[in-house]
Amino acid sequence: MATGNPNLPTLLPIDGVKIATVSAGIKTPGRRDLVVFELADGCSVAGVFTKNRFCAAPVLVSKEHLSKEQTKYLVVNTGNANAGTGEQGMKDARATCSAVAECYGVTPEAVLPFSTGVIGENLPMDRLLSAIPATKEALSDDGWVAAASGIMTTDTRPKGASVSFEYQGHTIKLTGISKGSGMIQPNMATMLGYVATDANIDASVLQTLLSDTTTKSFNRITVDSDTSTNDSCVLVATGRSSAPKIESSQDKLYQIFKEKLQDVMRALAHAIIRDGEGATKFVTIQVDSALSSEEALEVAFTVAHSPLVKTALFASDPNWGRILAAVGRAKIEPFDLNKLEIYLDDVCIVRNGGRAAEYTEEAGQAVMNQEDILIRINMASGDASETVWTSDLSHDYVTINAEYRT
Amino acid sequence: MATGNPNLPTLLPIDGVKIATVSAGIKTPGRRDLVVFELADGCSVAGVFTKNRFCAAPVLVSKEHLSKEQTKYLVVNTGNANAGTGEQGMKDARATCSAVAECYGVTPEAVLPFSTGVIGENLPMDRLLSAIPATKEALSDDGWVAAASGIMTTDTRPKGASVSFEYQGHTIKLTGISKGSGMIQPNMATMLGYVATDANIDASVLQTLLSDTTTKSFNRITVDSDTSTNDSCVLVATGRSSAPKIESSQDKLYQIFKEKLQDVMRALAHAIIRDGEGATKFVTIQVDSALSSEEALEVAFTVAHSPLVKTALFASDPNWGRILAAVGRAKIEPFDLNKLEIYLDDVCIVRNGGRAAEYTEEAGQAVMNQEDILIRINMASGDASETVWTSDLSHDYVTINAEYRT
Repeated sequence: MATGNPNLPTLLPIDGVKIATVSAGIKTPGRRDLVVFELADGCSVAGVFTKNRFCAAPVLVSKEHLSKEQTKYLVVNTGNANAGTGEQGMKDARATCSAVAECYGVTPEAVLPFSTGVIGENLPMDRLLSAIPATKEALSDDGWVAAASGIMTTDTRPKGASVSFEYQGHTIKLTGISKGSGMIQPNMATMLGYVATDANIDASVLQTLLSDTTTKSFNRITVDSDTSTNDSCVLVATGRSSAPKIESSQDKLYQIFKEKLQDVMRALAHAIIRDGEGATKFVTIQVDSALSSEEALEVAFTVAHSPLVKTALFASDPNWGRILAAVGRAKIEPFDLNKLEIYLDDVCIVRNGGRAAEYTEEAGQAVMNQEDILIRINMASGDASETVWTSDLSHDYVTINAEYRT
Repeated sequence: MATGNPNLPTLLPIDGVKIATVSAGIKTPGRRDLVVFELADGCSVAGVFTKNRFCAAPVLVSKEHLSKEQTKYLVVNTGNANAGTGEQGMKDARATCSAVAECYGVTPEAVLPFSTGVIGENLPMDRLLSAIPATKEALSDDGWVAAASGIMTTDTRPKGASVSFEYQGHTIKLTGISKGSGMIQPNMATMLGYVATDANIDASVLQTLLSDTTTKSFNRITVDSDTSTNDSCVLVATGRSSAPKIESSQDKLYQIFKEKLQDVMRALAHAIIRDGEGATKFVTIQVDSALSSEEALEVAFTVAHSPLVKTALFASDPNWGRILAAVGRAKIEPFDLNKLEIYLDDVCIVRNGGRAAEYTEEAGQAVMNQEDILIRINMASGDASETVWTSDLSHDYVTINAEYRT
């Protein structure tokens, strides 16, 4: 199951980025499961990674290489996460980088490795390494669509977003792809996300842009509260656009670019929720007038993770008592229960500590029957707001996770 | 679904407690859904209640009455939780107390009200009040079994525990019943629990005994992480046993009694997990050698709440990568990943940051095929230990909660 438009939008090529997607047969013979990105000279590269303490080996190696040398290649495999694999996992991640480095004539530190799939099994290095040379011929300016499919695991559809805008007569393009469907409560980044722009952006500014926009996109979604060991998101700026270079957050173009980047990041994050395991609903949980951003997030995630709220959403049941009970157990400072209001879209369901006087079951039911649902919670205690996005808990979620070995 | 022995054990009568279970037809016509406990003069009574901020009206009234006057009667209805019902809910809870008080010739403050069932609908007061007089004739010393069924909602079986022991030639009896199956992560108490003893115990000591034993029983279980608005547990000491009075925690009998009480409380809490909504597994999660009790609990509950761990348990899949990922996202201080060990029963699955060298899929599978499973996590960082109990996440959980209006 999944919600919303199943089709990938047009993904604009980004001058300075070439992509190859080939088959290494890591989990399924013939599947195109190995992706290589080639970045032209002069690119700026930034990355954010999972905060799960059990980082997968490729995450540890990517962080190390990113801090050491100018990145020239990204190599991504699906079918095997190379996580929980101890020393052998580190050796395999490094061997993958060395093979790419040898193939393309760069140092291993210029290569960032990424893996996603089954946890706890060693990478089939023979198959993986022997597939790398084939990427050289396959490199293409127009490889985004194939790569979006190449990085999928339990995803039912590829995910991508692309925008193009004008600044003082110069065109700037942004294209990104993402993957992820379960084990989704990213903390710092999503499962995997790759975003590139032809804007010219100083590397230090690029990291801030990526961190800021990740916070309001991938770090605000949850399918099942489980943070992956492999979450990674990379942002590349090739500098091939004729637009002026962004060297600091004071530059006029900075805010304009940041908004466009936020749009792309949010679209990629939403695509993961729309394809959340077993999802039949796309749910926005907006908490307004909270004492602090932390409080708003605690309330929003407590509601988003409640199995009882999620099964009620699956049943299209306007069971506001479950939302109320979830808000009531959030770990926040005491607040005035009688001022709190809860809405389903524009329908007020809770006011004065109980069911709103004007509420009717019909009005609540009408909202719950929709595929996209907004749960809005007004804490009436401050001026902080936060929004998170989630999916429902369906039979398909249980089926998928009782049958799939992550 | 449920796990373990479906039969209620023998429930010993407690001298000084009479119980009536009658039909008020609150949700289902003819169902025996109204229970009244009559406590003899001289009983000590203690209570613990939900920490959900949206306390149901009966919880608020019970707390108020317990602090004001010697409790003589408990009145419990199922089918309607009288929660999220605002001012009308408070009026209805008070009117219920007044009706019981009038029937039995006591003050309304001597009555504690309890409700469980659908949230957000007003109590059908006409039906409830007209059923109260019938409780008078139905009162019986031997009413525990009927009451255990009377307080059920989505429970598939009644829950009770009873022990009797000798102290210096005197017999002391303890009997308790509980209910609960979903919306279970009690915080301070379970859905509903009623425990009585004929021991003679000072009221102040009784509250400590109840709080301490609740902490290690009802506050250590979780079905779905959702804390109910109506959780309440009451402990009554009638003092009819000839054993010496317990007046302080220094008394010799105090520790002996406390252990027996802990046994009964734990049995009642475990019964709720065994009857957890859709449960096919009874899972013990034991965290050893943690820095602190708080840290051990954070790790244990993070694993217990992980939908991916719970669906793997449902599938009898020894998917240790999901347990590892859950431990890795627990909000605790940094620890040495290489020293951590994870066991399924006695089978070591994780060591040195990855799969244990001696682990075999067959050994893991053999444990996962069992109905009762122990997940043991050795943090190797301190000397604190904690244990929590949970159930798995099955199709039946989704079915029950997508169809039942709590």
